Order: sequence, then structure tokens, then C-alpha cells
Amino acid sequence: MTRVLLLHPGAMGSSLGHNLVENGHEVFWISEGRSETTEARATQASLTRTGCLADAITQVEVVLSVCPPENAIQVGCTIAETDFSGTYCDANAIAPATSQRILDVFGDRYVDGGIVGPPAHVHGHTRLYLSGSNAQQISDLFRSTRVQTEVLVNGPLTASAMKMCYAAYTKGTAALILGIRALAEHYGVSSALQAEWSQSQNTLWDRSERMGPGTSRKAWRFAPEMREIAKTFNGADLPSGFHEAAAEIYSRMASLKYKEDVDTTLVLHYLLARNDTDS
Amino acid sequence: MTRVLLLHPGAMGSSLGHNLVENGHEVFWISEGRSETTEARATQASLTRTGCLADAITQVEVVLSVCPPENAIQVGCTIAETDFSGTYCDANAIAPATSQRILDVFGDRYVDGGIVGPPAHVHGHTRLYLSGSNAQQISDLFRSTRVQTEVLVNGPLTASAMKMCYAAYTKGTAALILGIRALAEHYGVSSALQAEWSQSQNTLWDRSERMGPGTSRKAWRFAPEMREIAKTFNGADLPSGFHEAAAEIYSRMASLKYKEDVDTTLVLHYLLARNDTDS
Repeated sequence: MTRVLLLHPGAMGSSLGHNLVENGHEVFWISEGRSETTEARATQASLTRTGCLADAITQVEVVLSVCPPENAIQVGCTIAETDFSGTYCDANAIAPATSQRILDVFGDRYVDGGIVGPPAHVHGHTRLYLSGSNAQQISDLFRSTRVQTEVLVNGPLTASAMKMCYAAYTKGTAALILGIRALAEHYGVSSALQAEWSQSQNTLWDRSERMGPGTSRKAWRFAPEMREIAKTFNGADLPSGFHEAAAEIYSRMASLKYKEDVDTTLVLHYLLARNDTDS
Repeated sequence: MTRVLLLHPGAMGSSLGHNLVENGHEVFWISEGRSETTEARATQASLTRTGCLADAITQVEVVLSVCPPENAIQVGCTIAETDFSGTYCDANAIAPATSQRILDVFGDRYVDGGIVGPPAHVHGHTRLYLSGSNAQQISDLFRSTRVQTEVLVNGPLTASAMKMCYAAYTKGTAALILGIRALAEHYGVSSALQAEWSQSQNTLWDRSERMGPGTSRKAWRFAPEMREIAKTFNGADLPSGFHEAAAEIYSRMASLKYKEDVDTTLVLHYLLARNDTDS
């Protein structure tokens, strides 16, 4: 049995935590400063509540960071400033260059992670890529759970690279397609594009109809993830513009986080920046 | 019967010309300065050879421009400087703002066009979008041919907008996917990405394997087309980065035009700019 501190129990984090609990581990979370929604999720996932970091950190052998990409370095530094001497695993959607900065803090105690797929409620859909010298330790925690782990051995930051490559396609194409829908709307060719896509591009129009509503609640956190991907392309001397543009698309959708009943028309309205009069 | 001057009989242009000839029209091409390959294509398509522009222009009622996007304005201006008084149709992959510049020259005699699909050798796969006050005249020329025409009525430049939207997806995603393959190669996660894509993204890996070889001969002309699409996004105050990046991807592949037996490995080599030592 390993004691793990989970930072923090969002939808993804709490599902990972729940799988660990089911595997016999104890998973702590810090309630200080977290919302009632987070508390409800943590309780549902059978996580152990602690009041503050100072309480928690002395009790755990592993810290698992699952947070928005723009917070990953700060979360790592906060832990590094404590007496924690165990394994620190960052499972966030960050560029290898960002991950390097956390590795620099923890050294060999750092495990780089990257999650592909939805929260791990069913078998076979969620993979946790891991790299670094302690990667197997983290992998072992999830053995026989609904979280499939893959230890990558080509370098200490390959798990982050893998996550970046994966999201570069899924979230990159979604942003591109939403951008094209907005483009067609601007130029008055939406109907023509619908007819053409329906004829020669299979299910693309229908897919595009689902993309706006499907991403509107998550776009706020996709934007910084796209910037991490752009940074990853830059690091390989490849063009970063795809994901800089994707970040801009998702940024324009960020305030849709709290809107109910979002449809494609509303998303295009936001993308075309016509929302200054009604929001 | 209408006499048409075709500028110029590339693979696409000659297929359009051949459809017009089969429909009873006479289609001229100008041999001056064109290659033997072009001559062979024009002969095969039963086009009528003329020596130079001055010869041809007095005999035709319609000029049809099918050329690389970066030449579209120059081709238009060359015709505008003659005594030609008929209808000028630009069927090129250009931004509405680029098309506007040719419209400014020809006024009401200008028809904006955009071609979607492959050269028109079979029924049902090639569509010629047309807009502008004389659009129906051009559409009528192709009646009952293998070129399906669609007249768009939302504005004089909507055919170009339509083409930009269509190619934004097809050639934009191809460039994105090639970029991601290069990214994975750079970071040493190609095998992991192959396994993941094969598991959760259907046929994406296999598609990606065909993309490099499939585009390597055409990348040189895709690059300027991507810049036209970027300009189209800019014109709608939408992010242009997707297609600026796509232009960069295709630019790096431009010199593959003349290479035989191109495979994915070679394409990634060029994308990662490792080709400076062996080319």
C-alpha cells in the first residue's frame, strides 16, 4: 500500500485517485481553497481529505500532479519547497521543455507523465504514459486498474512528448475545423460547405456540428494546452502556428465555460468576435 | 459553341479543357514558353494550339485561368492589357482578397471560380464553384460534362471563399498530421504514437503513412495555396497560424517535387531540416 497525494481531484485526477484507492492505496487530497464541487468529487472517489499541504506531505511517498498545464510548474515548486522526499509525478499536458523545469527541481525523483483519453471510469480508454527512472513505480500503482500505463524508455520526458503529439491532432483538428466553420460563416458559404463536406468528406459536417458544444466547457483549459504544444513544435524546429492558432480559437471560446445549451451558432458567434455586444 | 482560351493546360486545366471540347466548344492554349509535357497534355485533351497570346486573344469569348495561386494576378493583368472584351474566369485557389484584385480589373466581366476535387476524368468528383454576375455563362459551358458546376449567389467572391474553406481542411490537416509525425520522430515517440493512434484513432497512422508520398510532388504548389488560405483567415479576423504553419511544412517538402520513390522516412527527414547534408 502506497500513500499518494493527489493535486488536485478534478474530473481526471479524481478518476485516477479512485483507481488507486480501489487498488488498495490511500490517496490524500487537500481541501484548503478547493470548491464544493471538488469536495463532492473527492468524496465520491473515496479520497482521504487533509486540511493543508503541511499535514499531507509528511504522510505520503508519492505526489501525483493532475492540474491545468499553466499551473504545473507552480504545483511542482510548491511541493519542492516542503520536506517531501518521495517520487513526484507530473501527469499534465505540458511541453517537454516545461516538464524539464520540474525535472530540474526533483532530479531522479521525477516521473514525467501524460494522460491520453477520458477520465478512467471504464477499461481500455485511458492510458497514462510514463517516463523517467522511477516510471515503473508509478506504473505499478495502477496495475490491474482501469488506467492502462505505458512506460516509455526513450528519454525522461517522452511521456510529455507523447501527450503533446496526441493532443496536437485531436484538439488541433477540432480547433481547425471550428475555425473553418467560422471562416465559412464569415464569407457566406456555410450552406455550400455543408453540401460539399456532406458529399465528399464523409461525416465531417456532422462532426463539426458536435465540436463546438463538445468543447465549449473545456476550451478555457485547452488554450494553455495548445500553447504547450506550440512550444513543443518550437523545440523541434517545426512550425508552431497550428497550435498558436488553436490556442486563439479556444481562447475566444473560454467564456463559454459557464454557458448552458451551447450550439454551433453561438460558438461561431464567439469565434467571429461578435460577442462584444451581448456578453 | 464558345471559344475559350485556357491558361494553362496543367493536369487540372487540361481536364477542364477536354470536357469543354467534348461539349462542342473550342479551347485554345498558348504554346509559347510551355514545356513538352504541357504540349503532350494539351494534344491529348484535343485543345487547339496557338503560338502566342496576341494570336489567341482576338479569337475567344472566354478566358479561363487555371494556374498556381501565386501567378493568378499576373495572368489576369496580362489578359487585361490586351483588347480582350469577353468573360474572364479565374478558377484558382486564391483568397477572396486576391480575387478582388482581379475583379477590380475586369469588373462585371469577371467570374470568380474555385475547383474542388481531382482533374475531371470521371463523373461526380470534380466541382467548379462559380460566383459573379456572369457565373451562369461559365456554368453553361460545362453543362452535362464531368465537371459539376455550382453557382454561388452570396457575393461575387464566394467561389474563392468556398475553395479556401475546403482546402483549409484537406490540405491543412494533411500538413498538421505530417508535422505531428515529424514531431514524434524528433522526440523519439514514433512507435508509441503508432501504437496509440492505431488503438484509438482508427486509420490515422495508415493515413499519415500515405500523406507524405501522396503530397510530395505537389507540396511546392500547396505552400502558396496555404498562404492564400492564411490570408483568407486574416480577412475574417480569424487566426491564420494553422495555414502559415502548413505553408512552412509544404515549403520544406518543395524540393521533393522531382524525387522518385518518396517514403515517409524521407519526408520526415526533410521536415526536420536534416536534409542540408545530403541534398
